[in-house]
Amino acid sequence: MAQDLNKIVTAGMVAIGDELLVGSTKDKNIGYLAERLTTVGISLREVRIVGDDETAIVEAVNALRHRYHYVFTSGGIGPTHDDITAQSISVAFGAPCIISAEADKLLADFYKRKSVPYTADRRLMARITAGATLIDNPVSVAPGFRIKNVFVMAGVPSVFSAMLDGVLPALQKGEVLKSASVVCPLPEGEIGTLLAEIQKGNPETRIGSYPKYENGKATLVLTIRGYSSQAIEKARKAIISMIDSNVREIS
Amino acid sequence: MAQDLNKIVTAGMVAIGDELLVGSTKDKNIGYLAERLTTVGISLREVRIVGDDETAIVEAVNALRHRYHYVFTSGGIGPTHDDITAQSISVAFGAPCIISAEADKLLADFYKRKSVPYTADRRLMARITAGATLIDNPVSVAPGFRIKNVFVMAGVPSVFSAMLDGVLPALQKGEVLKSASVVCPLPEGEIGTLLAEIQKGNPETRIGSYPKYENGKATLVLTIRGYSSQAIEKARKAIISMIDSNVREIS
Repeated sequence: MAQDLNKIVTAGMVAIGDELLVGSTKDKNIGYLAERLTTVGISLREVRIVGDDETAIVEAVNALRHRYHYVFTSGGIGPTHDDITAQSISVAFGAPCIISAEADKLLADFYKRKSVPYTADRRLMARITAGATLIDNPVSVAPGFRIKNVFVMAGVPSVFSAMLDGVLPALQKGEVLKSASVVCPLPEGEIGTLLAEIQKGNPETRIGSYPKYENGKATLVLTIRGYSSQAIEKARKAIISMIDSNVREIS
Repeated sequence: MAQDLNKIVTAGMVAIGDELLVGSTKDKNIGYLAERLTTVGISLREVRIVGDDETAIVEAVNALRHRYHYVFTSGGIGPTHDDITAQSISVAFGAPCIISAEADKLLADFYKRKSVPYTADRRLMARITAGATLIDNPVSVAPGFRIKNVFVMAGVPSVFSAMLDGVLPALQKGEVLKSASVVCPLPEGEIGTLLAEIQKGNPETRIGSYPKYENGKATLVLTIRGYSSQAIEKARKAIISMIDSNVREIS
């Protein structure tokens, strides 16, 4: 797609948790992040799912944070022994993992208001990498944190999405990727070459062909993505005209 | 977890498709693969999601195929211009991308039986990496392929799952990871240290703590995973006893 590269803002994601790799929890954060970033003008380029393993987390975060403008992580920031994300991010940045005074006060005040003891375990939720700033958690208080271009957020979907909504406004954005879709009554095997020609003639767009098989019924959706509405509309018309002439030829 | 390392069989996954990173399609194959592999005794260690981009696919597949016993890919094996997986896998292996005579015959026969023309586009679904063997597609015929330890499969979930079910029986398996779960009436912040102690006393297991917030209600599930049922049961009993004595203390 022809585009002003200065206007493209990219992101990576690292989803953390044994439960995702074992399959006992089906991730919901990746799809949510993908959709939200697209909407605001940030291009998600790569996602990695790793277990609760410091070496794996460090490797994934370090690979992605040097490659993309932003990296978002999900999972592993609670107060139990399997929550090793704050520690792992600190290792990735070569900085100490500390108790944030600000988060500590936030949590202490919250539990005081609830008349619930602020235990040593709960205090672990105040861990951040030294130098990080807090990410607000409007759902359950315990904050995430941002260190440089890495946003460390919760794995619980309602908390992840609330944290993301909180941080998005402050981020640098690029042009918003737009899209249009056409339901195609012809199968992929009869339009492939024609569609490839349309793609070639519309280099400002990226055309995807998405077949589905549900209950034995095949459907095909063609999606045109790009940064120019005019370019998308031009490709969309070319696709519709291609479909029309081929449906007629067959009938 | 103490375990016979010879008996651990590992896997990685590369999910391929712009639609996954844009968020217009929410992946369903990762969770399915994770669950199925766990069930049969293969340990999924890492997943990467990349777009329809040869460089990204090659990098991800080459990184994972040298690291794990098996790699599964999803997506990009159809007949349209955006289906670049067969070509990319060939680049990853430094082998030519060819039309498989076997797949070609399979497809030609299938379309002949249906009295549907076997177009040049449809023939593209016979592309494999030279040296690969076919993966059966009982849903829509067009096969996937296996080259060395990499299994190249469809992105459409019903086809992906059918292909996976077909290849699993022939794979090397390790011990099956078992698990038990305990619903915990106490919050994480009141059991963290105690749970960490139980984890320390039960090194043959891996204990995960999974809070959920749904409709403003918090629930907590503790999951014990391991290769020994006895070790899991020992940890489970320790957790239940820890919960019992703390619930009593509070009430």
